[in-house]
Amino acid sequence: MLQNMEERQPSRENTLDNTVRVETFSDGVYAIVATLLVLELRVPVLSVINSTEFLHALRDLVPEFIAFAVSFFTVGIYWVNHHYFFHGVQKSDWKLLWSNNHHLFWIATIPFTTQIVGKYHTLKWAVGIYGFDMALAALSIMMMIHYVFFHSKLMYPGFPEERKRSEFRRGMRGVYLYFIASALAFINVYIALAIFIIVPLMYVIPGLLNDHSEINL
Amino acid sequence: MLQNMEERQPSRENTLDNTVRVETFSDGVYAIVATLLVLELRVPVLSVINSTEFLHALRDLVPEFIAFAVSFFTVGIYWVNHHYFFHGVQKSDWKLLWSNNHHLFWIATIPFTTQIVGKYHTLKWAVGIYGFDMALAALSIMMMIHYVFFHSKLMYPGFPEERKRSEFRRGMRGVYLYFIASALAFINVYIALAIFIIVPLMYVIPGLLNDHSEINL
Amino acid sequence: MLQNMEERQPSRENTLDNTVRVETFSDGVYAIVATLLVLELRVPVLSVINSTEFLHALRDLVPEFIAFAVSFFTVGIYWVNHHYFFHGVQKSDWKLLWSNNHHLFWIATIPFTTQIVGKYHTLKWAVGIYGFDMALAALSIMMMIHYVFFHSKLMYPGFPEERKRSEFRRGMRGVYLYFIASALAFINVYIALAIFIIVPLMYVIPGLLNDHSEINL
Amino acid sequence: MLQNMEERQPSRENTLDNTVRVETFSDGVYAIVATLLVLELRVPVLSVINSTEFLHALRDLVPEFIAFAVSFFTVGIYWVNHHYFFHGVQKSDWKLLWSNNHHLFWIATIPFTTQIVGKYHTLKWAVGIYGFDMALAALSIMMMIHYVFFHSKLMYPGFPEERKRSEFRRGMRGVYLYFIASALAFINVYIALAIFIIVPLMYVIPGLLNDHSEINL
Repeated sequence: MLQNMEERQPSRENTLDNTVRVETFSDGVYAIVATLLVLELRVPVLSVINSTEFLHALRDLVPEFIAFAVSFFTVGIYWVNHHYFFHGVQKSDWKLLWSNNHHLFWIATIPFTTQIVGKYHTLKWAVGIYGFDMALAALSIMMMIHYVFFHSKLMYPGFPEERKRSEFRRGMRGVYLYFIASALAFINVYIALAIFIIVPLMYVIPGLLNDHSEINL
Repeated sequence: MLQNMEERQPSRENTLDNTVRVETFSDGVYAIVATLLVLELRVPVLSVINSTEFLHALRDLVPEFIAFAVSFFTVGIYWVNHHYFFHGVQKSDWKLLWSNNHHLFWIATIPFTTQIVGKYHTLKWAVGIYGFDMALAALSIMMMIHYVFFHSKLMYPGFPEERKRSEFRRGMRGVYLYFIASALAFINVYIALAIFIIVPLMYVIPGLLNDHSEINL
Repeated sequence: MLQNMEERQPSRENTLDNTVRVETFSDGVYAIVATLLVLELRVPVLSVINSTEFLHALRDLVPEFIAFAVSFFTVGIYWVNHHYFFHGVQKSDWKLLWSNNHHLFWIATIPFTTQIVGKYHTLKWAVGIYGFDMALAALSIMMMIHYVFFHSKLMYPGFPEERKRSEFRRGMRGVYLYFIASALAFINVYIALAIFIIVPLMYVIPGLLNDHSEINL
Repeated sequence: MLQNMEERQPSRENTLDNTVRVETFSDGVYAIVATLLVLELRVPVLSVINSTEFLHALRDLVPEFIAFAVSFFTVGIYWVNHHYFFHGVQKSDWKLLWSNNHHLFWIATIPFTTQIVGKYHTLKWAVGIYGFDMALAALSIMMMIHYVFFHSKLMYPGFPEERKRSEFRRGMRGVYLYFIASALAFINVYIALAIFIIVPLMYVIPGLLNDHSEINL
């Protein structure tokens, strides 16, 4: 706001001098996706209204509830990583905006694939597609990070090169893991499902227990 | 923005220097949850279109409308408390982000449990589950507050220790109340339902009437 | 951010030193309500897929499309007024937050009443309820404005008293108009419907045509 | 915030001194529309649960998935252009707010027209209406830009006049293109559908490949 006009002139050829709006827009998409997931949990219509019928109907919702919870916390991981990443980004440009839109596209499909795996968790294709969506969401955020870290001048100056490389390597592990889980679904769906449940737990729990909040993913 | 890079370096091991984005993301989730609640109010399909039929159909929606209104204002209480709490928080860290995500998870389930209690308010399990969800939403926000107040250095300096203890004790009363209401549902659903309706009234009305806006919950 | 801790201490007994979050939360609710309205426009399921059938099905949606458009721009009016109002507000307090939540409650019910009037625009009760909802949305925003203008110290200093009174009087005209339209629905639904359509046009069009953007509502 | 009260006084007759809230509100609408699109992708209900049935059901969703993806990235284009445009805007006024609301109205209808074209992509009217909606979304953003560029003093001073004219001409090409695509739907739906798919690709891909991020639309 204090910069002179030479710098402030918006231009498709150069950079935007902050990242406020891309963060607001992304927060909106993450918040909506996380919250929409619960819309799939439809209250059962009971033929006879009593506790036995009601509990039976709820029991049938258990797989969908688990799918909702797993996707909610997995979207939470993407949001936390997005937040940490953008904390180091000073400016945005056209490629960053579109790399981010690409990532948000795969985030936006999560309610659909969550619904699929919630309903048909015994079908290898349903489980495989869910894992593939998660892998693409992870890959697309890493593509954005790769561009900003290694092919742009959008970071705050002084961010150590070694740190960029180690963060990038760490992030890529999640991508590999989801592609592998997606492939494993065609061998045994329960192994893939276990991975989907374990990843967020493995990611979140240790950081909450130790004092240094190291992240292992 | 004016700080030098030593301080600004985002790091999973240390703190983020503001709470803007965690507040934006939370506002998004609260706003969506509050607004989604009304989606459950489905316009009745009338076999004969006349005022008598229409009013009968609306009358059948009364329990769902009450459930919507109660949940809307209860979500409002969580938002107001979240707002007041974060007003005293200077920085965020990984544990704060995840404590907050945990709280938002229970907030995100409110449209589901509201729908349940709106449809089956005579079933003890439906009413009990609604109260349990509310208790978990309250407990999870208190867990976040407990961490930030007593196990972190994220508050603005100078916040009095006595004040933290009294605010925490006051907040825990709501947690106990919802757990008790949830248990009472199995004795008599109407006592539990009365508590759900009275809590927001008790919380909001006195503050609007007196000039000092004391909060009693 | 530059104020010292004495001022910054959040307290339920005193004021919050800005209005950022109440505006973000409100923007979220307004944006969601405006956008959810279109969810009611369900694509017709055609028994035979051809242009004639398709156009017939679309024609049946015309009343719902009009209801959607009218509610969208009416919500737009509330948002614009909310924006102009908060532009003059420096601080928030507990009563402002809850007056605002009360207003947002009536805003959140608009998708429901819009759906009612879109489906049953020939029923006096449906039209009356829509007008009543609009009147309560208008009344609740005026209650908030009344509190802030005349019973608080939350405005930027120097806002002229005469200006407050004239703005308040002007705003109350909308409240009366919607209560009257709501009552007129029981005499003739088409008069009430005409008012709902004319109000946004009357509010928006003249301001776009003349250069001084005077608002007549 | 540092300006004195003479300048800050909100007034319907003069300008608001920033564009924060109109951007937040717009980001909300864009984020919701982009994310709601996926709600139309309903998980198929299978009579027999096996992979063959599941893949058949998914195959039937392909046109809707393509419609979702195309609309997502087209909404992304509007958001990116809106972001770049507002980056050069210093202040807002009543006409800007309403020009923006008008634009958001056509954005808000995109989930409806996307659903139509996803379900009935062989019907010329369905495809024509989709193109017409896109054309109106493009036209309405250009109307806002026209007002701000040529009939207001809302831009940061120093924005070159020649640049305004060239940006405006470039933007109008998209408007013409969508009106033409909409008309072509009545000759051959596949030509129109191809244009809807090619436009976002043509807009996004070249910018990602070259280093100067020139935009060709």
